[in-house]
Amino acid sequence: VTRRKLNDEEVQEALAQLSGWSLEEGRLHKEFKFRTFARALGWMVSVGVEADKLDHHPDWSNSYNKVKVNLITHDMGALSTLDIALAQKMDELA
Amino acid sequence: VTRRKLNDEEVQEALAQLSGWSLEEGRLHKEFKFRTFARALGWMVSVGVEADKLDHHPDWSNSYNKVKVNLITHDMGALSTLDIALAQKMDELA
Repeated sequence: VTRRKLNDEEVQEALAQLSGWSLEEGRLHKEFKFRTFARALGWMVSVGVEADKLDHHPDWSNSYNKVKVNLITHDMGALSTLDIALAQKMDELA
Repeated sequence: VTRRKLNDEEVQEALAQLSGWSLEEGRLHKEFKFRTFARALGWMVSVGVEADKLDHHPDWSNSYNKVKVNLITHDMGALSTLDIALAQKMDELA
């Protein structure tokens, strides 16, 4: 994945193609729900492996079977191609 | 661990024995910092196994190498012996 800042139009296009993601304070946001705590944590591990491969990491919180995710490219203070790639990977693994 | 609500005195005693934990809005709070994202996530998995054993789960958020933890016994709306047990286990595994 080439690391590149997205313009507003590209962000809207990406949102239109992703399912369940929204824009919250400039971040790509989604809440995932699993059957159990163990499933939620297992998913986080799978995503974590991919995040380390991308060298791009989510901000996320877990409470029992729920995981709330916020994605942003911190050093750009904006959304980038990496955020879209990570969002797609998260959906794929859920 | 016997599941029992703690009174204020017991909470203060527990805080005095734990290292780095504080009381925030009635919750037991601590921020853990690790060398890497992978170490943070690995620790979450280790804690997760113990949390499932206790049938008591943390509210926690992760951002790269940091994990912020909030413990409370939700159905009591208070701290219980389970929160102390989980806090001790988290420190032990960190």
